Amino acid sequence: MIYLDNAATTKVFDEVIREVSTSLVFDYFNPSSLYVPATQVKRKMDEARENIAHALGAKPSEIIFTSGATEANNWAINCGLKVKKGNVVSSYGEHPSSHETLLALKNQGTEVRFSPLKKDGTVEEDNFLSLIDENTSLVSLIHRSNETGAINDIVSLSKKAKQINPRLVFHSDGVQAFLKLGTNLRNSSVDLYSISAHKIGGIKGVGVLFKNEKLNIRPLILGGGQEKNLRSGTENVTGILAFSSAVKAFQKHYDKRKIAEISQYISNTLYSNIDEIKINSPLHSDILSISFHGKKSEIIQRLLAEKGILIGTGSACASRLKYNRVLEAMGVCKQCIEGSIRISLGSLTTMDEARQLVNALTEIIND
Amino acid sequence: MIYLDNAATTKVFDEVIREVSTSLVFDYFNPSSLYVPATQVKRKMDEARENIAHALGAKPSEIIFTSGATEANNWAINCGLKVKKGNVVSSYGEHPSSHETLLALKNQGTEVRFSPLKKDGTVEEDNFLSLIDENTSLVSLIHRSNETGAINDIVSLSKKAKQINPRLVFHSDGVQAFLKLGTNLRNSSVDLYSISAHKIGGIKGVGVLFKNEKLNIRPLILGGGQEKNLRSGTENVTGILAFSSAVKAFQKHYDKRKIAEISQYISNTLYSNIDEIKINSPLHSDILSISFHGKKSEIIQRLLAEKGILIGTGSACASRLKYNRVLEAMGVCKQCIEGSIRISLGSLTTMDEARQLVNALTEIIND
Repeated sequence: MIYLDNAATTKVFDEVIREVSTSLVFDYFNPSSLYVPATQVKRKMDEARENIAHALGAKPSEIIFTSGATEANNWAINCGLKVKKGNVVSSYGEHPSSHETLLALKNQGTEVRFSPLKKDGTVEEDNFLSLIDENTSLVSLIHRSNETGAINDIVSLSKKAKQINPRLVFHSDGVQAFLKLGTNLRNSSVDLYSISAHKIGGIKGVGVLFKNEKLNIRPLILGGGQEKNLRSGTENVTGILAFSSAVKAFQKHYDKRKIAEISQYISNTLYSNIDEIKINSPLHSDILSISFHGKKSEIIQRLLAEKGILIGTGSACASRLKYNRVLEAMGVCKQCIEGSIRISLGSLTTMDEARQLVNALTEIIND
Repeated sequence: MIYLDNAATTKVFDEVIREVSTSLVFDYFNPSSLYVPATQVKRKMDEARENIAHALGAKPSEIIFTSGATEANNWAINCGLKVKKGNVVSSYGEHPSSHETLLALKNQGTEVRFSPLKKDGTVEEDNFLSLIDENTSLVSLIHRSNETGAINDIVSLSKKAKQINPRLVFHSDGVQAFLKLGTNLRNSSVDLYSISAHKIGGIKGVGVLFKNEKLNIRPLILGGGQEKNLRSGTENVTGILAFSSAVKAFQKHYDKRKIAEISQYISNTLYSNIDEIKINSPLHSDILSISFHGKKSEIIQRLLAEKGILIGTGSACASRLKYNRVLEAMGVCKQCIEGSIRISLGSLTTMDEARQLVNALTEIIND
């Protein structure tokens, strides 16, 4: 079986599995307790925090552990909004965890302004900035699309946004960008940044909200006062240590150049083999959204599976939906959206697997 | 070293560690995806849901996975409140995750009525019920105290509460009661019930909110629509399978009678050995809150640690606080609270360890 779906290409690293097993045997003490073995667990958690902070160009005190990026996005958008009567600026390209939270705010009466997407899946800079004004309280813009891999330059956009309104809070969903783009948040104008462990080979159920130390936000979840009173609940020690271990493993194993080569090979070859094709992703992307006009994605997926190749049809977080909001916002036609697949490339993906995929897809589509 | 603190007595079962290791190797597929290996993961999750539901006397569809009981309590209290102008009835004996959420509601203008505690740590029935009226929208009452082990009869109280006002939502924090009391929620008047995996030998970072199928509540966390649109975020597959495995292991290993014997031995012997002692827990409790008038709990804890015995001084979730709200509400005097320790007994605790504890404590206190 060849696995080119997102779950497989982000599967837990062997190093992380070893870390988890060790942690469950030895690190069960509650890091908020005051006795010696508990303080040792706390020290390991501090090291994990430092390691993740370093990978983001952040300070350890700016790293707040959450149950995942979905919680982090919900929290950032709900609680980053300081002035309830101010407006919120975002885009049509957000992950469901941001999009649905924004829609809920809108239903509660907050003005939410959605920037349209260009054909390449990013926001158009002038248009995006024109939505921001002196009443903008929060901006939330995805760093890299989970559907297409399209990259918004949030470092530049956050700077320009704050030139228009220095009081706004700038949040970005960085799940698909973390480690892959190597973005450094230090000295940037990004105030809040969400990341997830299981997208870089950690385990599910843990994420981080980066919070610029100068910003105060209220907690989403209250209680025992863990995470400096910002995120209560017994710390997910194993998940956090595994997250840190995954960062190290990812940095060691992720071969950006190899993935870029494979990505380019798939795009180029399919493009020359197949007539009615639309590639919705940028060059060299490890997420490849490809549309085949007039085809049905579920059928393509099934036929590929019969040939031993597993791919996705789009974000699992949106798999229940019949349409693809992000592709639609990019202006992809209905017949193309219905025939769209999502191929994910990871550290373990080989050129040989890519060749088999291309051959199989060519056969299926041209049949 | 003898471990009689809560983290050690609820440490992860060996069976659970094996389940986690297997799950991380094989079950990395996203259960919300539609292809075959993902549906196999979904089936395992369904089995876990059924197993946990069965242990509660609930239906599988009534089990919603969360990141822990803190999230479940926050969610139940914030979103169980249907009528914003209605009042909320609770007690002074709640866990911080409920108490702080209630205080936040109060700060936002909701009337919150706190029932006082009796000397035994439970609410006084008549008083508690007298707080409920036709405008009560939500009742939240802890099932079993995390500080003392005191048990509120929530099955009876929820029934009586609904006789006063059938429209109210009844929530209970069941973290310390789950499996230990064997409470069956079927046909009860409890609408919402929070439990946590890591208090029964599962791993940290996963919990459940039981939601009666007849009740509708809005989600706290929005996004990809997982958990029937009630709790978005990629499912914490490993944590969930481990939770189910922990339920089985707990049911196999937990020897209630042995723990009751040990608990009674500790209470009785300390009571006869030491003059200025107050036992704040009910008979046979696996949580033993004991106050030594005029002593300092941190010093007792340190001296016991020097003798190789590890205990807690109270809930880790409240370890940053200088006082103990729950003991205070029970009328325990200040000098007793300052000299309070919390001993936790688990499946692995032996009578020999209890003897060593009693001897060491007697020596320390009478010194």
